[in-house]
Amino acid sequence: MNEVAALPEAARHDTLDAFHRGAFHLVQPTGRGHRAGMDAMMLGAAVPTSFGGRLADFGAGAGAAGMAVASRCPRSSVVLVERAPEMAEYARLSRDHPLNRHLADRVSVLEADVSLTGKKRVAAGLSDAAFDFVIMNPPFNAAADRATPDALKRAAHVMEDGLFESWLRSAAAVLKPRGGLAIIARPVSLAAILASTAGRFGGVEILPVHPRAEQPAIRIVLRAVRGSRAGLSLKPPLVLHGTGERFSEQADAISNGRASLFGD
Amino acid sequence: MNEVAALPEAARHDTLDAFHRGAFHLVQPTGRGHRAGMDAMMLGAAVPTSFGGRLADFGAGAGAAGMAVASRCPRSSVVLVERAPEMAEYARLSRDHPLNRHLADRVSVLEADVSLTGKKRVAAGLSDAAFDFVIMNPPFNAAADRATPDALKRAAHVMEDGLFESWLRSAAAVLKPRGGLAIIARPVSLAAILASTAGRFGGVEILPVHPRAEQPAIRIVLRAVRGSRAGLSLKPPLVLHGTGERFSEQADAISNGRASLFGD
Repeated sequence: MNEVAALPEAARHDTLDAFHRGAFHLVQPTGRGHRAGMDAMMLGAAVPTSFGGRLADFGAGAGAAGMAVASRCPRSSVVLVERAPEMAEYARLSRDHPLNRHLADRVSVLEADVSLTGKKRVAAGLSDAAFDFVIMNPPFNAAADRATPDALKRAAHVMEDGLFESWLRSAAAVLKPRGGLAIIARPVSLAAILASTAGRFGGVEILPVHPRAEQPAIRIVLRAVRGSRAGLSLKPPLVLHGTGERFSEQADAISNGRASLFGD
Repeated sequence: MNEVAALPEAARHDTLDAFHRGAFHLVQPTGRGHRAGMDAMMLGAAVPTSFGGRLADFGAGAGAAGMAVASRCPRSSVVLVERAPEMAEYARLSRDHPLNRHLADRVSVLEADVSLTGKKRVAAGLSDAAFDFVIMNPPFNAAADRATPDALKRAAHVMEDGLFESWLRSAAAVLKPRGGLAIIARPVSLAAILASTAGRFGGVEILPVHPRAEQPAIRIVLRAVRGSRAGLSLKPPLVLHGTGERFSEQADAISNGRASLFGD
């Protein structure tokens, strides 16, 4: 996640950022839109290292999480699914960048809205039972992390609950039986996520992410298996920082594509 | 949790067990029924040390968790609610034991089924809005922890989901607005618990309990506030053991009533 160089199109204020210690790069806009960081790296790290199937990155943005999977899992093929035309364009710029030539054969970009249903979803390129794994980092209103009036907070929660239901319904539809799901979200969304996995996914594994050992979790990474009947389990947490501002050894390894989040 | 002496009624195979380093004692049956241990101590430790209101221990058994609250929170008053006549009798024997004389004024026993609803619940002694806190350690089928045929497992899950719904509905009914809830359960029950707290409780705090730092959680302790609209949070876990079989310092302090689980 180091800025390497500004692109020639300086007016667009794009940057080229190195991830996984230079194993892949992302073209990203500056000053607007979501910029990829540790959330995307943790999500990508939730996929087992041995994974060798077809993976969809829902709401891929510039492609950080999906590219992280392509980089760490050499037998995987990855479809970056992004609705916003501008961000899908950054995903294509990233995929086509010369520094990502070693990955380009296994990465494609699909400009589509993952919340579509039925025939519209299929027509958009998201066929039934077409993937072995879906990962997602659903957009959330960061303002909801801060104190806001109750009414606003409730509206934000309702919107988000609907978003999880919509995205998880599509994930279940496009996954093959026993296909895998990974999602990164805020702890406040846990109930909505569990409600939407019910009846669709089983074998839920929750891994809390704490900034420091003594602080509440800021994220959860949740995995599940399509059609499984296994029960939920709660994994030992990832603690991002020891003393000081530097990443812990485990967080650094995950950030740099040298370890998987669930140890598999 | 040390066995002090067998009671004179040797034929009943009762024991007198010391908790909180002798601060209170329990009369318990041996060889049958549930014997109190660390689960009850963790549940009791979920109540803030400053708590000074009226607390109901749902499914109290011989009274371990409720007595632990009475022992650690000197301004609390505790009602041990137990349906099984034999266990309610043990709760009374515990409350009336000379070694618990210092607590007896603040502890009472109510033989009642917490799954009753409406007028039947009120007639059984569980009035609306009568408590400031409810704690519960719902009975669960320990066999479900082991590998069992899918059909049996599903049946057990369905039974348990209904149990959580029933117990949490009653807890919501008997609590005053802003009253507290604490529940100890297996992680596999998390979705059912969150579904049954929805619309009744908010400000959910989940604290995972891991046997060792590198192992999945074996219990969750969940707190919530009646009528709150605050979001869910995920607390740093309690790890029971370091190296070897002895309790960690934190687990030992909680086991012995010298610390609260949520640090309040």
